[in-house]
Amino acid sequence: MLDVWVSGAGMTRIGRRPEALQDLMAAAAADALAMAGRERPDLIVVAAMNPEEFVGDGNFASSVATAMGFAEVPALRIETATSSGAAAFYAGFAQVAAGLHRTVLVVGGEKMTHLPTPKVSELIGRSIDAHERRYGATMPALAGLVTRALMARRGVDEREMSWVAVKNHAHGAKNPLAHFQAPVTLDDVMASRMIAEPLRLMHCCPISDGAAAVVLTVERAAVRVAGTGQGTDTLALRHRRALTSFRATQEAARAAFAMAGFGPERVEFAEVHDAFTPFELIALEDLGLVPPGEAGRVTLDGDTALDGRLPVNPSGGLKARGHPLAATGLAQIVECVWQLTGRAPGRQLDKRVALAHSIGGLASNNWVTLLESR
Amino acid sequence: MLDVWVSGAGMTRIGRRPEALQDLMAAAAADALAMAGRERPDLIVVAAMNPEEFVGDGNFASSVATAMGFAEVPALRIETATSSGAAAFYAGFAQVAAGLHRTVLVVGGEKMTHLPTPKVSELIGRSIDAHERRYGATMPALAGLVTRALMARRGVDEREMSWVAVKNHAHGAKNPLAHFQAPVTLDDVMASRMIAEPLRLMHCCPISDGAAAVVLTVERAAVRVAGTGQGTDTLALRHRRALTSFRATQEAARAAFAMAGFGPERVEFAEVHDAFTPFELIALEDLGLVPPGEAGRVTLDGDTALDGRLPVNPSGGLKARGHPLAATGLAQIVECVWQLTGRAPGRQLDKRVALAHSIGGLASNNWVTLLESR
Repeated sequence: MLDVWVSGAGMTRIGRRPEALQDLMAAAAADALAMAGRERPDLIVVAAMNPEEFVGDGNFASSVATAMGFAEVPALRIETATSSGAAAFYAGFAQVAAGLHRTVLVVGGEKMTHLPTPKVSELIGRSIDAHERRYGATMPALAGLVTRALMARRGVDEREMSWVAVKNHAHGAKNPLAHFQAPVTLDDVMASRMIAEPLRLMHCCPISDGAAAVVLTVERAAVRVAGTGQGTDTLALRHRRALTSFRATQEAARAAFAMAGFGPERVEFAEVHDAFTPFELIALEDLGLVPPGEAGRVTLDGDTALDGRLPVNPSGGLKARGHPLAATGLAQIVECVWQLTGRAPGRQLDKRVALAHSIGGLASNNWVTLLESR
Repeated sequence: MLDVWVSGAGMTRIGRRPEALQDLMAAAAADALAMAGRERPDLIVVAAMNPEEFVGDGNFASSVATAMGFAEVPALRIETATSSGAAAFYAGFAQVAAGLHRTVLVVGGEKMTHLPTPKVSELIGRSIDAHERRYGATMPALAGLVTRALMARRGVDEREMSWVAVKNHAHGAKNPLAHFQAPVTLDDVMASRMIAEPLRLMHCCPISDGAAAVVLTVERAAVRVAGTGQGTDTLALRHRRALTSFRATQEAARAAFAMAGFGPERVEFAEVHDAFTPFELIALEDLGLVPPGEAGRVTLDGDTALDGRLPVNPSGGLKARGHPLAATGLAQIVECVWQLTGRAPGRQLDKRVALAHSIGGLASNNWVTLLESR
């Protein structure tokens, strides 16, 4: 298995975007290729969760490749619901590691803000087990259920989960590509309207458009892929062993750390999947970055802030940078690469080992990626 | 890069199926695993073209893995329109070749017959360039245009393209899993109703449900993957250099033969993408299996029949076995594996080198796979 390097990373501003999805993805890809100093990739791996229903286009790998002017470059699409970007990164990694392609462009994107919110909710809801869906389950409803269990069984309180939003908005305010760029206060969060008890509006990530891309190569570059791993779990929440931790995250971390040959103690900062703010607390413990039961406390203590011991979501996370579904797993990796190569002015960290964590569906298909600077 | 072997192959009967898509895929997978003598794979690669719109379910890799009782096995989905099954085979191949997983289950399926035909046509039509779609282009309409060019510029006549249907139905009649199992005559084909001039109903493959699966492994088995390659082209037909040959097929063949280290002269039988019967004639020449301009003649001469020099579509092809979209690329490979291992009673060939050819969209994303028995 060959070593795989990230030589380029690019993304669009996240938010409400008027452009066609293919054009957003082409823009992100062009930025990534420019950073890599490459004219053209040998393979394009496309991540999109549901372009057929969100924008009405299928055969999407060909559609994106053609829009980029790369119709003659092999292209395929990967999908694992909301973690599709991370899955595509992994698929591209495998191609380079196997020696099948030397330079792989991985590009993910989604466009949803043109649709009414109930329609977006219905389409995202296709990720939920059909039986639970029939009872009216939506993503926020299931996340509310997980949060209730977390409060009842693990003692997480509303201040802790609200502080995640305050922290991530503070980070997003320093990221010119973030969907939200205004800081928020604890009072703002705790006074926002209820969405799915106990989750309030400002515990939830927004609906966003955007795209992100990376270039993977067999040639030595500034950032090495140290490890990458996938973890899975039953589609149905009711079949899980636990509600307050995600097996899919734990297994993805185990696989990624096994490949890297080091453990969570070496990780210096992380981008984690905070689609709902309590999920950041769950992730910190599932990933082994924080001892069990301490995620809330370390968050309130400021350990996970930009100037803390272990900065988490320096980009602003899904909460503030935004969550354009299949772009998200790649946007996390873009942030890690930019941080590792000194390309994050205004929020620049001085760190060498990064972790990116992406959740697919309600944590049925998760990924962990470990990156280190040379 | 490690050698990759096919140790198992299974598929369902193709046709109108009442079962849930996930259950069809689980059945095909169980058969493939049984042939491989494996209880459980290390990775599942799922192919489905558009399960969100065909059956209303997303997060489909998790959905299928859960339905199989393999919720804890890593699973991801691959899509390249109608060639998704072949693309998933390639993605699984890369995983094994890279040494990332030892045993990979690749399973593809689609379910469409419960929907009205105009709806199916609309959903499949999402694979067409948006601009051409706006002018009313459907897959049969574009295939009709290609066929007109083939008749005008390459001298292909209606008897030649009709004989492909006669031959493939004769093969399907010997395949107990085929959608259509009745032979048809040249008169039947040439008297069938016009669909998209000059294409008649019996020049077109049916709308089918079904699933197919293979097991790939790093351990020596009966069939080796000699080569696999992808070729692409512009999404829009109007941007192509030629209408009477497909660049995507030519490039896929070039890549697959380069990996295999041999040329088309070693191929002893083939499964090719005859969604429209003239496409079989185009494929034979694009793949280098027949000299330019001779595909029609060799077909009428019987060279591509089961008892001919180079049997093509011994399964019955898309025309008679049926075309359950993302299952098709894998169903072709299943047929090749069964032929290479003496598992095709009633239509058994005595051959050692097979080629499978799959078209994505209107030939924007094609694949060629070369298999040889040990």
